[in-house]
Amino acid sequence: MSDLPKRVEFHEEGPREGFQIEKKIYPLADRVALVEALAETGLPQIQVASFVNPKKVPTMADTEQLFAAIKKRPGVQYTALWLNEQGFLRAKATPGVDLKGKLSYYASDRFAMLNNNCSAAEMRERSLRWLDLYKEAGIKLDSATIMVSFGCNIEGDVPIAAVTDTVRWLAGVLKERQLTLPKLYLADTVGWANPNAIKRRVAAVREIMPDARIGLHLHDTRGLGGANFYAALEVGVDLFDSSVAGLGGCPFCGNDHGSAAGNVCTEDMVFLCQELGIETGIDLEKLIEASRMAERIIGRPLTGKVMHAGSLAKFRAAARQAAAE
Amino acid sequence: MSDLPKRVEFHEEGPREGFQIEKKIYPLADRVALVEALAETGLPQIQVASFVNPKKVPTMADTEQLFAAIKKRPGVQYTALWLNEQGFLRAKATPGVDLKGKLSYYASDRFAMLNNNCSAAEMRERSLRWLDLYKEAGIKLDSATIMVSFGCNIEGDVPIAAVTDTVRWLAGVLKERQLTLPKLYLADTVGWANPNAIKRRVAAVREIMPDARIGLHLHDTRGLGGANFYAALEVGVDLFDSSVAGLGGCPFCGNDHGSAAGNVCTEDMVFLCQELGIETGIDLEKLIEASRMAERIIGRPLTGKVMHAGSLAKFRAAARQAAAE
Repeated sequence: MSDLPKRVEFHEEGPREGFQIEKKIYPLADRVALVEALAETGLPQIQVASFVNPKKVPTMADTEQLFAAIKKRPGVQYTALWLNEQGFLRAKATPGVDLKGKLSYYASDRFAMLNNNCSAAEMRERSLRWLDLYKEAGIKLDSATIMVSFGCNIEGDVPIAAVTDTVRWLAGVLKERQLTLPKLYLADTVGWANPNAIKRRVAAVREIMPDARIGLHLHDTRGLGGANFYAALEVGVDLFDSSVAGLGGCPFCGNDHGSAAGNVCTEDMVFLCQELGIETGIDLEKLIEASRMAERIIGRPLTGKVMHAGSLAKFRAAARQAAAE
Repeated sequence: MSDLPKRVEFHEEGPREGFQIEKKIYPLADRVALVEALAETGLPQIQVASFVNPKKVPTMADTEQLFAAIKKRPGVQYTALWLNEQGFLRAKATPGVDLKGKLSYYASDRFAMLNNNCSAAEMRERSLRWLDLYKEAGIKLDSATIMVSFGCNIEGDVPIAAVTDTVRWLAGVLKERQLTLPKLYLADTVGWANPNAIKRRVAAVREIMPDARIGLHLHDTRGLGGANFYAALEVGVDLFDSSVAGLGGCPFCGNDHGSAAGNVCTEDMVFLCQELGIETGIDLEKLIEASRMAERIIGRPLTGKVMHAGSLAKFRAAARQAAAE
């Protein structure tokens, strides 16, 4: 138990993951209120929305207005997602976006084709252009993410070599350009990870990039999110993407039963950390309130658990009180 | 990763936990169909229903009829719950009930009062009477369960000593009577467990009863069910109670948000075991079908995840096919 990190950092993705996937376009005011509530919890970073093609993703058409409307809290990073240069330029032109120099790779060629209409090798080449763009814009390199690091619905199980090959290639590029990579994320994009796979891949990429902080982007698609999160803690991972209330689930997506769970749930994993004595800097009770707000906004029961049962704080307080009497 | 068990045994509790907690009384035929579907999956043991006061628990008033209606599958154990001598005598008089000599204890005095209207010490004394009853009836001692082994909503965190004191007391009784206890369960009755607490308590009770097989009865009340299950696997636990589709949740129970998740979900945890290379003897696809039947019967979305996303089998098969072409 001694390898557990002392402190874990959560980057909240619910406002982007949760609303982007919906068919309905939710009122701007509700989404602003959710981001502002999340910023009050102690979360250090919140992904607010995407700068993507409004014709393809109408739920994210108002990202500029969303950023304009949010009352910012000092110390919180408000980030955004972009997939191409046009999106990046929009993000750059939008006041209040905390721009992060992010690189994206695929561990599966055919998933890259489906998602980005290019091969995994082309994605690597494109990342060189991103390094140039970030340099020109004066943005520091922040992270690289290897998507579908565990498995993909087209190619099946992803071998570790598909992950480590990309990481090795990137290590070479960084050395050549005398750059350092602060964070390296492994993403379980479509829910194929299991605890053994987590531990093995974390160990393998650490060997290649011992100085990069390893982060995980986990989905709870098949109910292993919590076990995968804990397995990562056991090997000292201290950086996670997650979604409040488990947002990011898809009630109508194309799997065989018509729905799927979303990202690993922020407040459930914060609760896990608290119970393990790991610092998060997050006020769990405030976060539970924010998760309930998310559920009210979305308008159907969400998959988070602690938001429905409540934390243990009030029971402990009552027990202490009773013991003192 | 080497301490993971080679094989894990699941005891299904959904038919009892899931329907007992509902306000609605579900048709007998539906409950029969669910039990029969579960028996086809390879599950070795299914808790069918309770023999409890029909005035207090009207959903379980027809337990005799339920047992009479089930077409039994050879090799499957069909068990039942009882809380007092009257219930036991009903179970004993009902054809088809696989009677298990079970003892129950509480690690929290005030929870015992609430649940059984007696102290934890009185529960211990009563268990002596149960030993006599089982002996008279020719039923072998099967298991002992320590309820609220991790925490309780009244007394708060339960110290390890409250668990080990009871186990030590029981070890003394068993020695005196020259009995052996095959299985010792720790139950997280109201969702207070965390991975560290699991590991510590399992180690502590093993020291006292090295020959008893340790089992866990876990709830996913606060989203830690999967992490707790995995932590238990890591210390070699190979026996779990669980509920298909996560049945046992309570949409109207008395916590601060009006609902709570149920037992740890059978098919999600079977999926976890499969992905870790652990044998379960269970056909996951059949189990997923049974979980979808449970959801249709209950009539609202249940909390299981793999039942909604599907397993990885079809993706792997398609990937193999594509690779072969």
